[in-house]
Amino acid sequence: MAVGRFKLCRLLLMNNRAVPWFILVPETDVTEICDLNLLAQAILYDEINTVSHFVQALDGVEKLNVAAIGNVVSQLHIHVVGRHAADFAWPGVVWGIEASERYTDEQFERVRQQAADGLGEDFRSA
Amino acid sequence: MAVGRFKLCRLLLMNNRAVPWFILVPETDVTEICDLNLLAQAILYDEINTVSHFVQALDGVEKLNVAAIGNVVSQLHIHVVGRHAADFAWPGVVWGIEASERYTDEQFERVRQQAADGLGEDFRSA
Repeated sequence: MAVGRFKLCRLLLMNNRAVPWFILVPETDVTEICDLNLLAQAILYDEINTVSHFVQALDGVEKLNVAAIGNVVSQLHIHVVGRHAADFAWPGVVWGIEASERYTDEQFERVRQQAADGLGEDFRSA
Repeated sequence: MAVGRFKLCRLLLMNNRAVPWFILVPETDVTEICDLNLLAQAILYDEINTVSHFVQALDGVEKLNVAAIGNVVSQLHIHVVGRHAADFAWPGVVWGIEASERYTDEQFERVRQQAADGLGEDFRSA
């Protein structure tokens, strides 16, 4: 679900209401962060920081999980997931577990608005 | 298993011979990368790059999985795992799956030596 975009990355929301789960998708053909040039890496890490601080501040978030995996979808993408000790997968990881609850249109719109308000001036809402 | 250290991070090897699985442990009390100051982040990302390129070049590695999770162990640590389409967990993630094969002392010594030779001059072997 498209939330918006930064300078380098599009920002998506995973349709799993159990946890706040964002995905940054940099515009690139390389499949590993280490193969981005250093300028692109710097921009990517800055955008990951922005999303990380945003997710950290959401209600109930106790821990971040930040990961570049890409075994299934080769387009480079980075997960930023807000976790807490009572969530659907804790203390395990969220990947590979079926979504328990989807967003309604209204719930998604609320997240989109929260992101638009909280992600700073380099972010353009979808 | 201690492999050595960089300027910021200790480098560990997970005792699971199914995949090359390294863990960077920065010297810090914060539990999220986004809470490191920007200089420490820059050093961390440089060390992750070094380990990523090293793991990428190992026999049979087709994909990297790079992740900061820390749901169980709160000390900040970053996994760099070399994956391939026939490994024990593919296409799933490696976390939460029991190690299938441990290293012998001799096998570990070989990895330690490979790391000492391949991780550049900022790396000190254990």
